[in-house]
Amino acid sequence: MKRTMINKLNQCINEEVLVKGWVHRIRTLSKISFVIIRDRSGIVQCVVENQTAGVKGLKHESVVEIKGKIVGNESVAAGFEMHVSELNVISLVTEELPIEVNKEELNINLETLLNNRVLSLRNLKNNAIFKIQAAIVQGFTNYLAKESFTQIFTPKIVSEGAEGGTELFQLDYFSKKAYLAQSPQFYKQMMVGAGYEKVFEVGHVYRAESHSTKRHINEYVSLDLEMGFIENELELMELETALLKHIFSHINETCSAELEILEVELPEIGESIVQMELTEAINILKEHYNKIELEEDLDPEGEKLISEYVKEKYGSEFVFLTHYPQHKRPMYTMPAENGKTRSFDLLFRGLEITTGGLRIHQYNELKESIANRGMNPEKFTTYLEAFKYGMPPHGGLAIGLERITAMLLGYENIRETTAFPRDKVRLNP
Amino acid sequence: MKRTMINKLNQCINEEVLVKGWVHRIRTLSKISFVIIRDRSGIVQCVVENQTAGVKGLKHESVVEIKGKIVGNESVAAGFEMHVSELNVISLVTEELPIEVNKEELNINLETLLNNRVLSLRNLKNNAIFKIQAAIVQGFTNYLAKESFTQIFTPKIVSEGAEGGTELFQLDYFSKKAYLAQSPQFYKQMMVGAGYEKVFEVGHVYRAESHSTKRHINEYVSLDLEMGFIENELELMELETALLKHIFSHINETCSAELEILEVELPEIGESIVQMELTEAINILKEHYNKIELEEDLDPEGEKLISEYVKEKYGSEFVFLTHYPQHKRPMYTMPAENGKTRSFDLLFRGLEITTGGLRIHQYNELKESIANRGMNPEKFTTYLEAFKYGMPPHGGLAIGLERITAMLLGYENIRETTAFPRDKVRLNP
Repeated sequence: MKRTMINKLNQCINEEVLVKGWVHRIRTLSKISFVIIRDRSGIVQCVVENQTAGVKGLKHESVVEIKGKIVGNESVAAGFEMHVSELNVISLVTEELPIEVNKEELNINLETLLNNRVLSLRNLKNNAIFKIQAAIVQGFTNYLAKESFTQIFTPKIVSEGAEGGTELFQLDYFSKKAYLAQSPQFYKQMMVGAGYEKVFEVGHVYRAESHSTKRHINEYVSLDLEMGFIENELELMELETALLKHIFSHINETCSAELEILEVELPEIGESIVQMELTEAINILKEHYNKIELEEDLDPEGEKLISEYVKEKYGSEFVFLTHYPQHKRPMYTMPAENGKTRSFDLLFRGLEITTGGLRIHQYNELKESIANRGMNPEKFTTYLEAFKYGMPPHGGLAIGLERITAMLLGYENIRETTAFPRDKVRLNP
Repeated sequence: MKRTMINKLNQCINEEVLVKGWVHRIRTLSKISFVIIRDRSGIVQCVVENQTAGVKGLKHESVVEIKGKIVGNESVAAGFEMHVSELNVISLVTEELPIEVNKEELNINLETLLNNRVLSLRNLKNNAIFKIQAAIVQGFTNYLAKESFTQIFTPKIVSEGAEGGTELFQLDYFSKKAYLAQSPQFYKQMMVGAGYEKVFEVGHVYRAESHSTKRHINEYVSLDLEMGFIENELELMELETALLKHIFSHINETCSAELEILEVELPEIGESIVQMELTEAINILKEHYNKIELEEDLDPEGEKLISEYVKEKYGSEFVFLTHYPQHKRPMYTMPAENGKTRSFDLLFRGLEITTGGLRIHQYNELKESIANRGMNPEKFTTYLEAFKYGMPPHGGLAIGLERITAMLLGYENIRETTAFPRDKVRLNP
């Protein structure tokens, strides 16, 4: 008999079926037991006579195969249950479970959640997070592929840091010094110049930042894109707006069950997303929220407050902040008037989920920009070289996957939206 | 005026258009010049009067914007050409090009090709390779998403090696020892056990192998999948067969221009792919090819010869070799009778592109298997832990992206099918 997935059982009323999955919950009465079985598609209530082989000693989270008949029952939420004729235990759990997987909310601390990751991910809510995360990535890649972007795979072992930064993990690479890439920035620009024009990458990036916040982990997935022959940074913001709309509608189409489990409604994005110059945002924060200490950037509290302001005033949960000052942006950022840049951040529900902007595409200008920041252009030879032989105007952006997942689903700490997070104290599981 | 992509110009006969791209080739006559422009979609011949601003001193690979009219011309291969009224140089190339991008075959050695990667990738053939590589990945992900696999992102910074191997890159991780993952093996199994059942990952893996061959690089992209509740390894081979068919048909649909540029026809896969026990392959090689030195594995020459044999005898360019001996497979491999395993390799045109198999899913058996190989189970605690609380039967496989690309397109060295390869001597570009 072929396995039937639990979410298809409603089409099998009065039929004999084979179900495989985990024992989600057992409630034993005098003659029968109610056993809830869980597979990747859902849960089903099964009625088993206590003398059926395998029932005695069965523990939560054991893996079982169950044969039986689907019978209509209006008193069960699903409208049916399964009357079991045969139960085979495939993997018997013999030890006490360290956490209670079947609770609606696990209500355990983050350490326990992550230490018992395989079990905590079986919890319906936690499980749903990463199905939606996968849908975000699918939405991102499908939209860009449809728009003629080429997916690229660039090296994560590099000989110099992309942004000239210091927060790099160092590696012993055949007795040479190498580093883990903190961004695919140089390589995605090079691939634009290599003739692909429009490229994207979904890949890990590494930041050896030793501070520990809810918004930082040391290895994260960056959804990167870069495109050539654009006129200005507005095109990038328009692209990201359309991209986010597509991602959300893809989630709505493919993850309705998961959204229901998480009790989440996705945000609406109107025609366009509000744009605001950084200086304007700072003025608003000074005026309305007494954040007089702000100067040329927002702190995490400022990001939250300006998001609240925009939500109240414009009804939008997103806001593009534009025209960051030059010394707050990397050396490849295209300058604008008055020491500003043609760059932007996207804040979503109070958190920066994207940094993007137009890049410098002329060799001499880029070389000068590197030197102006006190760095040695010779350290960037292979990158600079690409600008000597015909680089089109271009720009791009990156979305932090764990961050957008967290904001979308209402989690405060991005470790909860990372399957196996890495930070200063966590290398396991 | 909006930019028109070159592959759409055939719909613009007698219209004024704006084209942007690189100067692919210039041929200057006394009064006019023929300038071939290249964008990501193709090339077009443009006729420019020599007194037009910007023409004088224009060099190959400069980036330009050109306005003009598309005019039918039967003597040109495309059936039309562009008569230019205005030419704007966006990025002028002033230096001599280190390689001739516009040649049909670059005919340069691998070192030069890779040292000048941004330029060599502009060559039509080299450019096409990575569009097809992107299509392989799209085909892989789309097929598996359709089959209810969940895309996962697992850590590449790990505290122990997945296969207990020694060829690991070591990392300084906040003063702790960490390693780059040589495979997502443990984590994909854990994600099956975490309730996702069917998972895939597209990500980098790292092998600190110091030998240098055409078939090895030290950072490569692994197309991994793992699935639970399977009965045997045949299901995995069937899945891979269907997956490859889908990938090839996706390439045919989306990359016809690139296949033409590379003069490549994709292989046909029939109903199923030939399966052969490893011992049978070895016997054939001994008998027909005098490879008497072979014992329990094939060498690279053996892989080539058995592929030739299968092609001649069965007309197939693929062959699954099955039942590898236990001591040739990692400790998590499900054993079969007589010291064999329920595992397989897939050879394609003489090269192993996949390793896969059924895994051990019972805690005690896995612990014993680790110990039997002289390893300490305590070193695998977080992995083993996952098997205590209900792990379904499962198995999986991995496809090497650079390898399948190379074999598909007829390249001998997988460095040619890696955008920016990393090996013992190469960390740049």
